[in-house]
Amino acid sequence: MPLKKLETPIFDTVAFVGIGLIGASMALAIRRAGLAKTLKATSRRQETLDTALSLNIVDEASTDMGRIVKDADLVMICVPVGACGKVAETIAPHLKPGAIISDVGSVKASVVKDMGKHLPDNVAFVPGHPIAGTENSGPESGFPGLFNGRWCILTPTDKTPQSAVDSMRLLWRAIGSNVECMSPEHHDRVLAITSHLPHLIAYSIVGTAADLGTDIQEEVIQYSASGFRDFTRIAASDPVMWRDVFLTNRDAVLDVLQRYTEDLTALQRAIRRGEGDTLEACFTRTRSIRRSIIDAKQDETWRPSEQRDN
Amino acid sequence: MPLKKLETPIFDTVAFVGIGLIGASMALAIRRAGLAKTLKATSRRQETLDTALSLNIVDEASTDMGRIVKDADLVMICVPVGACGKVAETIAPHLKPGAIISDVGSVKASVVKDMGKHLPDNVAFVPGHPIAGTENSGPESGFPGLFNGRWCILTPTDKTPQSAVDSMRLLWRAIGSNVECMSPEHHDRVLAITSHLPHLIAYSIVGTAADLGTDIQEEVIQYSASGFRDFTRIAASDPVMWRDVFLTNRDAVLDVLQRYTEDLTALQRAIRRGEGDTLEACFTRTRSIRRSIIDAKQDETWRPSEQRDN
Repeated sequence: MPLKKLETPIFDTVAFVGIGLIGASMALAIRRAGLAKTLKATSRRQETLDTALSLNIVDEASTDMGRIVKDADLVMICVPVGACGKVAETIAPHLKPGAIISDVGSVKASVVKDMGKHLPDNVAFVPGHPIAGTENSGPESGFPGLFNGRWCILTPTDKTPQSAVDSMRLLWRAIGSNVECMSPEHHDRVLAITSHLPHLIAYSIVGTAADLGTDIQEEVIQYSASGFRDFTRIAASDPVMWRDVFLTNRDAVLDVLQRYTEDLTALQRAIRRGEGDTLEACFTRTRSIRRSIIDAKQDETWRPSEQRDN
Repeated sequence: MPLKKLETPIFDTVAFVGIGLIGASMALAIRRAGLAKTLKATSRRQETLDTALSLNIVDEASTDMGRIVKDADLVMICVPVGACGKVAETIAPHLKPGAIISDVGSVKASVVKDMGKHLPDNVAFVPGHPIAGTENSGPESGFPGLFNGRWCILTPTDKTPQSAVDSMRLLWRAIGSNVECMSPEHHDRVLAITSHLPHLIAYSIVGTAADLGTDIQEEVIQYSASGFRDFTRIAASDPVMWRDVFLTNRDAVLDVLQRYTEDLTALQRAIRRGEGDTLEACFTRTRSIRRSIIDAKQDETWRPSEQRDN
């Protein structure tokens, strides 16, 4: 059961390294729930910090990473996963003893490896991944309800103190998320099929359509409601974040991509040979998966009462 | 501008051959707009007809095709495209001279060929395809607003009288659709990329996930909001209808599938070689397509005001 409003903050100071869609949404959610006294942010770009300050997302901001993280009880790393190692190296000498360091990266094994080797022993590292997002980027896209009813996966390591895991669980639940713990490697295998492969496929088909030439491209947009549209939302996600996901979760992605390509090739063969029974059998069994997702209430777009018009 | 309510019906009697999601939605929309005096339906299964009658979707129903179509001014063929030829052969001797015959099939060249050879010269054949649908099937899934703001493509042949095209355009506009005309072959090429390939890909990836074993399948459902979910809606569409689409639009589907596979293979290669620049460049250019779709108002799920919670 998510806690709506806490009497006392969990943290004195929370510092965000990177304040894009996810960081800004977390800051807004933490502020709304009264979970921290002070919110700070650092980013490479002053313009991003100006936006975050002007929208009252954080109280203090600076491009000087060391200055922003030094008093923080919680440091949230909210940058593309490829940058996490470098960030850990930069902030390591400045961290307060006893601080919790966490992240929101979509890949966990590489982040654990890249950050773990730089972080000192007197801080607690709780790798995490909220399964939430929109196609938009930047602090101006953030909103405090982003994590409502979503899952957040924590992947503590052997060195992570249980008390730090408990604090992060409390935080995520207080901003509306359900929390599960698993190993970094298992996380990466599950997300390869549920998230990374779908994104790769969506990027690919939208790219294929873009190559068809100007004439047909206009018609692709005009008639996109016939299926294509469903792919374009996730193909509009942040390019740098996704580049890093595929570079850092390479093995798991290539494994599911290989399985998928085999399955698609089998369908291609059935079409070429006119094997209707094979096609119908495949199309029938995928229906039940959809039902399970609706039953698990993981489909926010399922609104039967709005679809009907009679 | 769609006409909301006509003073006089366009047709005396409209007969539906097949009364599933699309046929039932058309019948309800026609009834609501007062576009016909009498609505009739025929189907192979008495149970389907009983449902259509009990929901007051049509006034008369029978499994005897000849009896249902014989007085109709408009006969709407709303069966899977693979069955259209046989239907045309069966109804041909019973059609009223001067009647309009139309259909709603997702593939047009094969339907024009299969039906055209059976229909007599004294009726007008106006092949059509409304770009509308849901993942549900059967007359009980029909609703009159299904075609609101959607496109309907008509693909008249050399033999189609202009007056019949005009009548069908009037009908579709009166139930809320925008209408465009194009050749059957061009329709099939456009729909291969906007609709047929996306459905094939969605069926394929959902099948891949289903093969991963029971343990991980539960997690796939649990964490489906991370991307996978967007594929499952269209992978729950009617299996027989889609089997027929792939069998009858084989060449155009295999062509775009080949292009798509090449593009996906290029991304696979970039991932394996760690070529971040290639990935980022691909992911960046797909963003603009999404924007075009939103600008073209073809994205019904884009509701910024509901996404925000602050």
